[in-house]
Amino acid sequence: MSKEMIKEKIAQAVKILREKNIDMWLIFVRESSNIKDPSMDMVVGTSCTWQSAYIITKDGDTTAILGSLDVANMRMQGTYKNVVGYLRYIKDTLVGTINKYRPNKIAINFSRDSSLADGLTHGMYLELVDYLKDTPYLERLISSEEIISALRGRKTTSELDIMKHAIEETLKIIDETTHFIRPGVSEKEVAAYMKSLVKQRGFGLAWEADYCPSVFSGPDTAGAHAGPTDRKVEPGHVLNIDFGISYQGYCSDLQRTWYVLKDGEDKAPEEVLRGFNVIKDSIKLSAENIKPGRQGYEIDDIARKYITDNGYEEYPHALGHQVGRMAHDGGGLLAPKWERYGDLPFKKIEQGEVYTIEPRLPIKDFGIATIEEEVVVTENGCEFLSSPQQEIIIVR
Amino acid sequence: MSKEMIKEKIAQAVKILREKNIDMWLIFVRESSNIKDPSMDMVVGTSCTWQSAYIITKDGDTTAILGSLDVANMRMQGTYKNVVGYLRYIKDTLVGTINKYRPNKIAINFSRDSSLADGLTHGMYLELVDYLKDTPYLERLISSEEIISALRGRKTTSELDIMKHAIEETLKIIDETTHFIRPGVSEKEVAAYMKSLVKQRGFGLAWEADYCPSVFSGPDTAGAHAGPTDRKVEPGHVLNIDFGISYQGYCSDLQRTWYVLKDGEDKAPEEVLRGFNVIKDSIKLSAENIKPGRQGYEIDDIARKYITDNGYEEYPHALGHQVGRMAHDGGGLLAPKWERYGDLPFKKIEQGEVYTIEPRLPIKDFGIATIEEEVVVTENGCEFLSSPQQEIIIVR
Repeated sequence: MSKEMIKEKIAQAVKILREKNIDMWLIFVRESSNIKDPSMDMVVGTSCTWQSAYIITKDGDTTAILGSLDVANMRMQGTYKNVVGYLRYIKDTLVGTINKYRPNKIAINFSRDSSLADGLTHGMYLELVDYLKDTPYLERLISSEEIISALRGRKTTSELDIMKHAIEETLKIIDETTHFIRPGVSEKEVAAYMKSLVKQRGFGLAWEADYCPSVFSGPDTAGAHAGPTDRKVEPGHVLNIDFGISYQGYCSDLQRTWYVLKDGEDKAPEEVLRGFNVIKDSIKLSAENIKPGRQGYEIDDIARKYITDNGYEEYPHALGHQVGRMAHDGGGLLAPKWERYGDLPFKKIEQGEVYTIEPRLPIKDFGIATIEEEVVVTENGCEFLSSPQQEIIIVR
Repeated sequence: MSKEMIKEKIAQAVKILREKNIDMWLIFVRESSNIKDPSMDMVVGTSCTWQSAYIITKDGDTTAILGSLDVANMRMQGTYKNVVGYLRYIKDTLVGTINKYRPNKIAINFSRDSSLADGLTHGMYLELVDYLKDTPYLERLISSEEIISALRGRKTTSELDIMKHAIEETLKIIDETTHFIRPGVSEKEVAAYMKSLVKQRGFGLAWEADYCPSVFSGPDTAGAHAGPTDRKVEPGHVLNIDFGISYQGYCSDLQRTWYVLKDGEDKAPEEVLRGFNVIKDSIKLSAENIKPGRQGYEIDDIARKYITDNGYEEYPHALGHQVGRMAHDGGGLLAPKWERYGDLPFKKIEQGEVYTIEPRLPIKDFGIATIEEEVVVTENGCEFLSSPQQEIIIVR
């Protein structure tokens, strides 16, 4: 991420601290090459070695406290006003800096529900508690979940521009892949072809290379989140692909569905079209209902009910997640009220958030119908960022 | 990492559990694309989406408990005997699995001192505590630090073979770079040249591209861990480079020092040679003292004292760290007893560990002398994995 974008996100963090009336946000980390708090890419933009604290205050001050050998690098970044080094022990500098601001609330990165707001490791939490134990600040620690959720969710114009471009490029690769898909080609070969296009164009993959893209051809496939196999595309298969790229630090995440004609067919069979259309219409219906203030589970309910009302089994996952720097980004989810999603389905949808909508259903004896689109939440509704799939793509 | 190496490390983990008399090691994670416990690359080898538990027992059983959509992927990996999916909530499956083994000690990944043993986030810790609160197991949680320290530290033959190859290739690139270094070339250009060789040969970088390699030419440079600048190499500069590659999942980490001749010189000035030789000899002395059972701080003391006894200032960091899958790997450090290193300088050195030895000293008006070698601890001492730098490299 460019320094300008880091500064833009820091400025946005300050606004959010004011809005939520939180005095200070403290990111407390070490050895970020070994394990990296996801907030670092957002508002730090470089790495650290020893215990390090990045502090952003409601008043707009920014201070980085670092092992002395990391100081030059951070100054070269130029994104924090104060860069303070320590040699032997961070405690005094850290407590001294906090003291200067006398904060009533200090947000730190832990969250039971959101992985992106849970970058503080338990060992580092114990260190922090130890440093603060004789100060009034120990009692003033709160979760940064609502800061991070807003900061990652509310996309700036520069972020949206990058994301739109990533989506366009993803759809181009998907389009070109249609010419490669044919009977006899394996799932792995389709995936390798797509990866070659990604590499050629200088993009990254949005998630682990093992299953980006995921390619599923025909009935009885491995199911979502599994890698492509040696299974070959056959006439009569419904084939679907889940794929995203990473471009200038931001991800796309889209799915499309194909049908491979059998000899003598000139279109997909009725039952395939019916399944495909139920998915397509459930996405349209979901998008019509997304607007600021609604809770994610309400939207999931609408799609889930539409699909089961049409006689299909419900999808075993959430309807949609946010997208941003990560393929699974932000806080709130369009998810059912299952325990595994914690409080995330209850979050209110906000303007500027980018969600996927990605229901699925199995079409018996043919394969899985899935479409995944991306929408951005607007003042009164949402807009598609991806040009929605209207017809099942036919492979002749 | 290959599946075979994952299996090898799992088998080693079982041995270590027996040795330490710990019944169960529990890795508890989620959304590993967003934040990844460093143990996952070592004994899991793939990613997960929802809350997931990877359990290894003293008896050699392995169980992965995953969100249902991650199950197929994990089965395809074939590294865990039992792969169990859940749809809504991990709690019952997790507690049920633990119950089956009735462990007296359950090691989880938190550590105040070692980042590599601190992969459990605080939010996930709170989740785990909640799941276990009505069971006897809450009281039986201990830190996995000694397991991870041994597992990452004690290199298997296959690991050492890969690491040796990485070191050879790194030294080749450093050698070739000597021909590129000349007056008028900038630090950034030297770094770009080295990166082009890395890319050409299909390697990765051992740490953040911003400062891998780090290149420092002349006096008053930015200091360790900073990126290369536009500063140009000049006659009379001492130049040093810190560089490592990533090869088959393992890192190298080495430093070398050059001197750029002035007009009329045919060797480096006395004070430059003296500084260089003090570094070289301090490394030899350190290596002669490394053996199983000694504590890291003792070795650091020896090098630090040798350097200050020779009239130079002490280096503001540790003498050495372990190397492995990460450039900064393992537990124990060859570090001074400074608070920032916690208990790591007190760990006993073990056979099979790979350490860097990397003292530094400033040569006034010329630049920084640093050499970084890698050694592997043997039964009674240690052996150099890198062919040690004996002479300052001369640039004519």
